[in-house]
Amino acid sequence: MREVYVAGIGITTFTRLEYPLVEIASYASMMALKDAGVTEVDQLYVANMGAPRVNHQTALGSAVADSLSLLPAGAAAIENGPASGAAAIKAGFQAVASGMDDVVLVAGVERMREVNNLEATDFVATLTHPLTEYIYGVTLPSHAAMFARLYMEKYGVTERHLAMVGVKNQNAALNNVWAHLQQGITLEGILDSPEAMTNNPYVAEPLRFFDACPVSDGGAAIILVSKEKAQELGRPMIRLSGIGQATDTHAVFEREEPTDLLAVRNAARAAYDMSGLGPEDIDVAELHDAFTILEIAESEEVGFFPKGEGHIALEKGETALGGKIPINVGGGLKGRGHPVGATGVAQAWEIVTQLRGDGEKRQVEGARTGLSLNFGGFGNNVVCLTFVRED
Amino acid sequence: MREVYVAGIGITTFTRLEYPLVEIASYASMMALKDAGVTEVDQLYVANMGAPRVNHQTALGSAVADSLSLLPAGAAAIENGPASGAAAIKAGFQAVASGMDDVVLVAGVERMREVNNLEATDFVATLTHPLTEYIYGVTLPSHAAMFARLYMEKYGVTERHLAMVGVKNQNAALNNVWAHLQQGITLEGILDSPEAMTNNPYVAEPLRFFDACPVSDGGAAIILVSKEKAQELGRPMIRLSGIGQATDTHAVFEREEPTDLLAVRNAARAAYDMSGLGPEDIDVAELHDAFTILEIAESEEVGFFPKGEGHIALEKGETALGGKIPINVGGGLKGRGHPVGATGVAQAWEIVTQLRGDGEKRQVEGARTGLSLNFGGFGNNVVCLTFVRED
Repeated sequence: MREVYVAGIGITTFTRLEYPLVEIASYASMMALKDAGVTEVDQLYVANMGAPRVNHQTALGSAVADSLSLLPAGAAAIENGPASGAAAIKAGFQAVASGMDDVVLVAGVERMREVNNLEATDFVATLTHPLTEYIYGVTLPSHAAMFARLYMEKYGVTERHLAMVGVKNQNAALNNVWAHLQQGITLEGILDSPEAMTNNPYVAEPLRFFDACPVSDGGAAIILVSKEKAQELGRPMIRLSGIGQATDTHAVFEREEPTDLLAVRNAARAAYDMSGLGPEDIDVAELHDAFTILEIAESEEVGFFPKGEGHIALEKGETALGGKIPINVGGGLKGRGHPVGATGVAQAWEIVTQLRGDGEKRQVEGARTGLSLNFGGFGNNVVCLTFVRED
Repeated sequence: MREVYVAGIGITTFTRLEYPLVEIASYASMMALKDAGVTEVDQLYVANMGAPRVNHQTALGSAVADSLSLLPAGAAAIENGPASGAAAIKAGFQAVASGMDDVVLVAGVERMREVNNLEATDFVATLTHPLTEYIYGVTLPSHAAMFARLYMEKYGVTERHLAMVGVKNQNAALNNVWAHLQQGITLEGILDSPEAMTNNPYVAEPLRFFDACPVSDGGAAIILVSKEKAQELGRPMIRLSGIGQATDTHAVFEREEPTDLLAVRNAARAAYDMSGLGPEDIDVAELHDAFTILEIAESEEVGFFPKGEGHIALEKGETALGGKIPINVGGGLKGRGHPVGATGVAQAWEIVTQLRGDGEKRQVEGARTGLSLNFGGFGNNVVCLTFVRED
C-alpha cells in the first residue's frame, strides 16, 4: 500500500454564507490547490450530507470539478452523515494508496442555512433509524440529551462540566479567524449568573443552548498525494498515517451499554493499529463536539483518559491548550461551526495546520502527531484519522 | 496495485417496490453476500442519488451495514447522479486494490416512486447546472431531446432508429425476470400504426414515451474481493480489469460540439488502457440508455462503431443478441428500469451474469469480456468498467 501525504489545505469562514453551494466548495478547494501548488487532480471527492434536499442539488462532484476547471478528473460525492468529511478522506486515501491516482482533492461542504433551523434539525435527524427513531421525532439534540443524562448519572459528570467544554471551545475559536463564533463566553455568563437561564436556556435538558454547535455554512478541502508527489511539491511532509472506521447499531436503543461509544473505540483502535501509534503519542486532537458531552465521552473512547474520567481531565485543564492533550484548540464544532459535510475535512485542516506549526495563537508547541475523530449518526458511523509530520 | 475480482452479485426486481429503501438495498446485498459465500465485509459503499430528499433519509451506509449485521464494517454512501453506482464500484475497487480491504460490498439503491413522476423528474434535474440550467427548468428529457434533434440533423438518425432501440431493449427485458417492463412492443405498435401517436406520444419532441426509461425502484449489489479471497471463495474468476472515469462541462451549452460525448470517450479510453483491451475485444456491453438516443451515441463513443454510424449498426442488428456486439441484452435502462443509484451496479450485475454464462435466454454465447458504461448528468460524469473472465 502506498503512503499518502497531505500536500495542501483550504477552508472558508464558517458562518452564514450567501454564496452558492458549489462556490463554497470551490473556494476552499482553490485555497488547497494553491497551497499544494497543483492545478490538476486525478480525482475529487466532495463530502456533503444534505444538498439533494436542502439545496436542491445533486452531482456535486461534477459541479465542483467543472467550477474548478479540473475536467476530465474523476469526481463523486460522499454522504456519510456528519462523518461525510472523513469518509471522503478515506476514499481519497484509498485512491492514492492503490496507485490508481497521484493527486486527489477532497472537499467538504454544507450550506445548511438555506433552510431555517427547524428544517436543518429535521434534515440532520434523517440520519437516525428511519423506522425506530426518525418517525417518532427523535432529533440529534434529543439523542445527545439522553446520552448526557445517562453519562451524568453513571460517571458524575455535571452541567458544569458540559459548560466547561463549551467555554473552552468557544473561547478557543477566538484564536481562529475562520471560526463561526467570535464571541467569548464565561461560566459566570452561561451558568453562574442570574442571567444564565435567559442567556443559556435548556434546548434539550440537560443540554443548554451553549452545549450545542451552531448551524453553519462552510467548506474545507485537502489535497492528498503520493509520497513522490509530496516530495516534488515541497510542502511539509505530513503523512495521513492511520484511518479507522467503524459502524455501530443504527438505532441507539439496541446498544448493550448506551454510554459506550463502541464505534469511536473501534475506529480509534484501527487508526492507532494502522499508524503504529497509541493515544499517548498524540500531540493534538480534534474531537467531534457537536454537543459538549461528546467531547468528554470521545476523549475517553479514543484512549486519552480512562472511561468515565474525561470530565476530571477537563477540570484539570488537561484538554486545553498547554495541557496534556489539547483538544479542539481551533474551536471544535462548538466554536468553529458544523457545516455537516465540511466538518471532517475541517478537522483534518486544523490538524495539518498544527503539524505545520501554523497555528499562531492556538499553536500546540512542537506538535508532530495529530488525531481527528469524525462522528456520524449518533455514534453509528465513526472515522478516526491520524497524521504524522515526518520532516 | 492489487487485482480485484467480483465474487458475488445480487439484485431486486426493478419495479414499484413498497419496501423501505434500506430493505431494498439489503435484499440485493444479501443475495450478493450469499452468492459470494461471505458473511463479513471490511467496507460497504451504498450508491444512491436522492434519498435525502425523496426518502427523507441520510447515512444510508450505516443503515445498510446495520440492517445486514455487517457491523463494525466501514460504510458510506456515494452520490454521483445516475453514475452513482459505477462511482461506488470505483471506490470499492480502490479499497481492495489499495490492500486496505479484502472484501467490499457495493450496493446501489433508489426508491423513486415514493414521489410522483413530476417530482421524480425534478429531483433528477437537480444534477444539471444549478445556475445556468436547473433554474430555467431544463430536465433530463429536455436535454436528451435537444441532443437527439442535433444528432438527427447531423448524422441522419431518424425517429425510427430511436424506436428500434426501444423495441430492441424493451423486448430484451422479456428475457430478464428482474426487469421492470415485461410487455413486448413492436415498431408497428409504437410508430407505424394509427394508434401509435396515442400509444407513444411525444414527451419532449423528437423523443416519445417509449424512448425513455421508466421510473423504477430497485437495488443491486456486488461483492469485490482480492485475488486470494476470490480463489478461496471458488466462484467464477471475473476480474474488474478496467475503470475509467471522466467529467465534462457541467453545463451542456459550454461544449464545443454538443453531439460529442467527450466524457464517454475519455472514460472508455481510460478503462481500455487500464485493462489492455480495445472495443474490438468486448463480447457484451451495457450502455446507459436512459433515452434511446444515448445508446446510439454511446455505442460510437466507446469505439464499437465510427462516430455517426451507430444507428446503421443498429439497423443491421449488430447490437442485438447474436450480433457483432450485443448491447443491453438484459433490457438496459429502457427495459430493466432505472432506479438511479442502482443502475451502475445493475449493469455490472448483468455483465457478471453474462461472463458466468448464466444469461439463459439472453446469454451471449461464449462471452469472456464485458463493458458497462454508467452515464451521469447529461454526460458530465461518466464511469466505464471492463470485466474479464479468467478461468
